[in-house]
Amino acid sequence: MTDAETTPTTSSPGGSTDSTVEPQVKHMKWWGWGVEGVSFRHDDKPKFAAFVQKVIDLDVTTPGNPMLTFEELPIPEPKVGDDVLARLRSTLGEQHVHTDPMSRIVHTYGKSLRDLVKIRAGILPRVPDVVVYPADEDQVQAVVDLLVESDAVIIPFGGGSNIAGSLEPPPAETRTVVSLDMGRLDRVVDVDEDSGLARIQAGVLGPDMEKQLNARGWTMGHFPDSFTHSTLGGWVATRSSGMQSDKYGDIADITRGLRVVQPGKKIVIRPLPSTSTGPSVREMILGSEGRLGVITEVTVNVHRLPEERLVLGYLFPSWSAGLAAMHAISVSDASPSITRVSDAGETAFSFATRKKSSGLSSVVSNGLMAVLKRRGWDLDQVCLSFIGYEGGKDHVARQRSMVKKIVSEHGGIVLGKGPGELYDQKKFDTPYIRDFLLDRGAAGDVSETAAPWSKLKGLYDNVVASAHRAFDQIGVKGWIMCHLSHSYHSGACLYFTFAFKQDPHEAIAQYDVVKSAIQQAFIESGGTLSHHHAVGTEHARWLADDLSPAGAELMGGLFDAADPGHHFNPGKITG
Amino acid sequence: MTDAETTPTTSSPGGSTDSTVEPQVKHMKWWGWGVEGVSFRHDDKPKFAAFVQKVIDLDVTTPGNPMLTFEELPIPEPKVGDDVLARLRSTLGEQHVHTDPMSRIVHTYGKSLRDLVKIRAGILPRVPDVVVYPADEDQVQAVVDLLVESDAVIIPFGGGSNIAGSLEPPPAETRTVVSLDMGRLDRVVDVDEDSGLARIQAGVLGPDMEKQLNARGWTMGHFPDSFTHSTLGGWVATRSSGMQSDKYGDIADITRGLRVVQPGKKIVIRPLPSTSTGPSVREMILGSEGRLGVITEVTVNVHRLPEERLVLGYLFPSWSAGLAAMHAISVSDASPSITRVSDAGETAFSFATRKKSSGLSSVVSNGLMAVLKRRGWDLDQVCLSFIGYEGGKDHVARQRSMVKKIVSEHGGIVLGKGPGELYDQKKFDTPYIRDFLLDRGAAGDVSETAAPWSKLKGLYDNVVASAHRAFDQIGVKGWIMCHLSHSYHSGACLYFTFAFKQDPHEAIAQYDVVKSAIQQAFIESGGTLSHHHAVGTEHARWLADDLSPAGAELMGGLFDAADPGHHFNPGKITG
Repeated sequence: MTDAETTPTTSSPGGSTDSTVEPQVKHMKWWGWGVEGVSFRHDDKPKFAAFVQKVIDLDVTTPGNPMLTFEELPIPEPKVGDDVLARLRSTLGEQHVHTDPMSRIVHTYGKSLRDLVKIRAGILPRVPDVVVYPADEDQVQAVVDLLVESDAVIIPFGGGSNIAGSLEPPPAETRTVVSLDMGRLDRVVDVDEDSGLARIQAGVLGPDMEKQLNARGWTMGHFPDSFTHSTLGGWVATRSSGMQSDKYGDIADITRGLRVVQPGKKIVIRPLPSTSTGPSVREMILGSEGRLGVITEVTVNVHRLPEERLVLGYLFPSWSAGLAAMHAISVSDASPSITRVSDAGETAFSFATRKKSSGLSSVVSNGLMAVLKRRGWDLDQVCLSFIGYEGGKDHVARQRSMVKKIVSEHGGIVLGKGPGELYDQKKFDTPYIRDFLLDRGAAGDVSETAAPWSKLKGLYDNVVASAHRAFDQIGVKGWIMCHLSHSYHSGACLYFTFAFKQDPHEAIAQYDVVKSAIQQAFIESGGTLSHHHAVGTEHARWLADDLSPAGAELMGGLFDAADPGHHFNPGKITG
Repeated sequence: MTDAETTPTTSSPGGSTDSTVEPQVKHMKWWGWGVEGVSFRHDDKPKFAAFVQKVIDLDVTTPGNPMLTFEELPIPEPKVGDDVLARLRSTLGEQHVHTDPMSRIVHTYGKSLRDLVKIRAGILPRVPDVVVYPADEDQVQAVVDLLVESDAVIIPFGGGSNIAGSLEPPPAETRTVVSLDMGRLDRVVDVDEDSGLARIQAGVLGPDMEKQLNARGWTMGHFPDSFTHSTLGGWVATRSSGMQSDKYGDIADITRGLRVVQPGKKIVIRPLPSTSTGPSVREMILGSEGRLGVITEVTVNVHRLPEERLVLGYLFPSWSAGLAAMHAISVSDASPSITRVSDAGETAFSFATRKKSSGLSSVVSNGLMAVLKRRGWDLDQVCLSFIGYEGGKDHVARQRSMVKKIVSEHGGIVLGKGPGELYDQKKFDTPYIRDFLLDRGAAGDVSETAAPWSKLKGLYDNVVASAHRAFDQIGVKGWIMCHLSHSYHSGACLYFTFAFKQDPHEAIAQYDVVKSAIQQAFIESGGTLSHHHAVGTEHARWLADDLSPAGAELMGGLFDAADPGHHFNPGKITG
């Protein structure tokens, strides 16, 4: 949790994104996270600069890495036949077929640290040749059919927030590459009020979808960190998980029906609460990252807006105590909507991003800390936690009281509503900090996993040790911090954030060393390569370790059978 | 719910099953459900005979269809090369490789009505040639490798309770067919007590598994109607659902890790609470009915035995009121472990199977009925319901009270613990009634589906009307009844039971007409072909209707890629 600011940006180094691209569809900055005019600032956070100086030896008050301007990017000419272009234009209308440089650059990468380093440095081995914006499923079908017939490659594109390399064209691809932006399919089509099911077009962004649902009294309850800049179709294609997954489930649980365009046909999975129809086709589409076709519509579980919704802050005396409390809650009769606890490092980071007058400052005061110290707490080990509740007033009151008892049994204390409200307001702003650091010469990124409860502490220790060995190897002072979120009966997700000051000439090589060390530690410690960020190209080398070689082969066989010509987002997941 | 009896059988028409088959593995009667020496009796249930006479015009006091004795069955000679047999014997030990007629007959079919009609009439187009009982995963691997090398067909076999035709060899199969009975792999290998995860061998029967888990203080919470005669591997291979699925989830939710033997390799899915690794390989194995290999081990969520466990009986004035109440519970803050309500027909059937002194008789007394009649209830429309609760005492008390309020709002009343306890004791005994009826010349079977809440009432009406049209078509007085069970956020399962007096010369043709009419009505009314009984051969013709042709093709491509030689249970699911 941070006090990232949604105020005018102090810099837009690469120039504005939206000059030539499809006007009715929102796009992020070509060079960073989020929308033009919003950025993180440090000057109103008195402890931030000193904290960053201390942990990664970076002076945030001076500029760092320079970035190419858009005009300086070495953008190759689009490789597309006139006939294909003419057919696309006649199918979609001239204005929805783009070959201009900005449209193509905006659709070249997702938003991983690797992606941002590459695009800012002009590393562009393959840029999509055409970007198309179909208006509806019929147009998607027409585009898919004509592109497969023309032996082109199709990369479906949602909000572009992916951080696993799921969106980039293969560097050596010689065929025409078309980025199929789903942004115009953005409507809630229908709500079955008797069943709590909503039919929704796949290209809708999180906030636009919730606004349409809320207007009818419903919510989907799915709020991933990328919420403001990711789409329903993207969530399904990457197996997303939202911060309230303890109550609403992961996107795999929320998704009931699907429509997927394939060449000359459509997969239509009807919305069913449960079924016994062989290997789950629904669960084959989930996570398919565009390799099985284009997801055009999703029918999802939706819920009435709850009578009460509450996020409370808590403090634990140690990481072990926090983990044990989250586990105890998960096997109790309590059923909160959010369970989250930060390690001591992430807690210190949260405290360092406080503004003078923020909700966090007012509650986590020097006075409180003095009291905790007198109680015997080691203040360097304090861990901040957020637990959420939803439902009727009685239900929420009862859940709070059950959780409070468990928190107390693990030595924790209740901070109350102030920090929880702040968390709730600021939860989507963290990615802006990464751009702020990158502007100043530091790499920051995330890696997350899930594992059984019995393995979480060992996994955490191994990951932290591996990261620090990697920092030593590349000769930097690095920082890694973590939180637990998304509790299940048998385990949970651990979400790590790391940062270090880059050598600008070795930026990607350095990143590889650190990122690989963390991923390898996940696998060796019983965790998965990703809990909710997908495989893409970034994690593909760990797929066979995660699923066993035979498991990965089974999946490869599915892709080859469905798409023998490798027209759909080739090279992702199975490499 | 019925008062089926676990007392010595009055008839074992076909003779005992266990004379020659593998002694340490339990098998059901070759000609019917359950174990030798147990059957349903009607003479202690004063209303039963009259009820059956009334609804399907059958006199249960006189014998009906004769059945062939085992010695009369036209069992073909086994078709297996001496070399293959010798290699199987050297791999597994002589005594674990069976070619005797009884072993082969026991492994020819599951226990659908169709299966029982066929086996009792000696309709045996293809009987497995060999039955093998490997002792462990290494032996499964060795057997799979040598059989695929020998171009044989492998049909994995658990408890043999399947009712979708998933176990029978294809009638025209010319290769050697081997039934691979998993019954010797019956151990709980390990419990990870910190994570609530148990590693369990796939061949264990329900009661043997729960006994091992209970001894350590755990339960899996999975209790399908077939529980006493089905295995963990069978549940996974068919996407089973237990009666407490509202709390514990379907087998797809419970299953976390898997080991699957394929030719020359193994798929190993590690137990993870959730993951983002592409299309779910775990969810491809689930429901695969042996077509992707042999499931040898499953890691499942297990739970501490609850402090309190309670099933209460309720009555509703109508089916609509019962359905509406179940729906209201599913979207409330209450979280019961069981939600079940019978229609008026099934309620009448339950009342007709009461013994004089049963728990049901003592609670649902004539006095109570008189009171309800005075309140304005139509006694022909009364619907019996069971709702279960598990957890701490406080939690159970609170759930009960929340549910009681909802039941009242829908005009229902609480019957209390007596009927619930009876339901809990007798829940696995219903299949014995089918054999009792079949012995006397009547066909009885089940078909179940799931659909969104908004479609349940229409689906129910369509199914009942379709069944009665089918009864008319074949010229019989037929009966169909239903219960709702397994509630989800967006829908529920409807479970239909039907019966009619057979023409012994047209038994299978008559069954086809009725069963097809019901299945077709499921699909046309927005339901799935099965909620938890799998596809097999029985439901394969509705697969493309259920998943769309392109969805069924995607699944077919998976099977072809994984098993190009069609060695693994060919002909199932995709036909």
